[in-house]
Amino acid sequence: MLDISPGDQTLTVSGGVGLLEVYAALPPGLYPPFPPVELPGGVGGLVSRGGFGQTFFFGAEVLGVTFRAPSGRVVRAGGRTVKNVQGYDLTRPFVGSFGALGEALEITLRLRPGLSARHVSAPGSLAGLPDLAARFAWEMDGQVHLIHFGHGRQVDRALAVLPGAVEITGPLDLTSEFPGGMGVGAGGRVKDRRFGWMDGGAVPPVPALFARVAASL
Amino acid sequence: MLDISPGDQTLTVSGGVGLLEVYAALPPGLYPPFPPVELPGGVGGLVSRGGFGQTFFFGAEVLGVTFRAPSGRVVRAGGRTVKNVQGYDLTRPFVGSFGALGEALEITLRLRPGLSARHVSAPGSLAGLPDLAARFAWEMDGQVHLIHFGHGRQVDRALAVLPGAVEITGPLDLTSEFPGGMGVGAGGRVKDRRFGWMDGGAVPPVPALFARVAASL
Repeated sequence: MLDISPGDQTLTVSGGVGLLEVYAALPPGLYPPFPPVELPGGVGGLVSRGGFGQTFFFGAEVLGVTFRAPSGRVVRAGGRTVKNVQGYDLTRPFVGSFGALGEALEITLRLRPGLSARHVSAPGSLAGLPDLAARFAWEMDGQVHLIHFGHGRQVDRALAVLPGAVEITGPLDLTSEFPGGMGVGAGGRVKDRRFGWMDGGAVPPVPALFARVAASL
Repeated sequence: MLDISPGDQTLTVSGGVGLLEVYAALPPGLYPPFPPVELPGGVGGLVSRGGFGQTFFFGAEVLGVTFRAPSGRVVRAGGRTVKNVQGYDLTRPFVGSFGALGEALEITLRLRPGLSARHVSAPGSLAGLPDLAARFAWEMDGQVHLIHFGHGRQVDRALAVLPGAVEITGPLDLTSEFPGGMGVGAGGRVKDRRFGWMDGGAVPPVPALFARVAASL
């Protein structure tokens, strides 16, 4: 399932829908909260990991999630509109729960408008670029990747921090980097502002209290 | 306790610290995620209610919270920096939990910079102003209040949606409106984009699943 509401600028998808499937389906000028990069596990996997390579708070872009809790219960958290009552919220703990709260069945994401988009890359490290205006940023094999969308001039300004960068056109498919699943680790080829990402699907240890919450659902 | 870190633009306070106490302590040009309006319960009460009168996602501005769960256990969720790992997150469910997860002891909020700030008011209703750029917006006795901070021109643009508005200078104290606590309801004098606010402290009903989460902490 892949359902785009251009009017309220939301996207609702089954957990298994791929990130590039979303890009292919979106009308020009609307962007999801992830870059045009295919990663294992589709949108559901991305939400479980708490996002990839973005410079904003990913959790705020996840408006709702329906998930199967470890007990087998199906939990519907959040909703399909931005203005939903922000209380008693079980959406946010699901985001970045690395599977501890179960599996995402259906996800509603906020879409954002932009007149243009650019993807550039140059040798360097994210550590050397602390204050990034670019919406997406990651590092791979010693190359920094930045993507921004918005008004043309905004985009150019946001990407000007990478002088001598080359333009990247078209989507990237990184799934072959992670045949065993995308896990958190220090030695991988791919790194974003939060984690190094390695093949194998290793997740950060689950705090005891979070495990109790997971068991309560 | 009230501890401002201008360097990383965060504020850590005890739950009982007043909203105007925070404003009085902040250096010029740094703003918390609430307007200069005193409300019952201080910062802890505000976080329990999920914010007041703002047009952004309040939960994303709450970086960490230490709270006493209904079991008596003290839970430390989140942290003091924006770049904390956004996983296994118990901060967000606390925000807007209306006391169901217990009482906030210590809270860390994100601060945002702005060169100037204005507060204006004019007769009208929030319903007539759907797309607001102003950071704070609420309605009281048929008057819309808007506050914005940022660059001077940004501020003027954000407030131009209220033609003929008068400037409000100085903070407002609304605690006398809510001697019995600030509760959700339709008949009150004060209304923001999510709720009507009434004296008496009535809270939205707690979903069963959220009550189970609360009991697990």
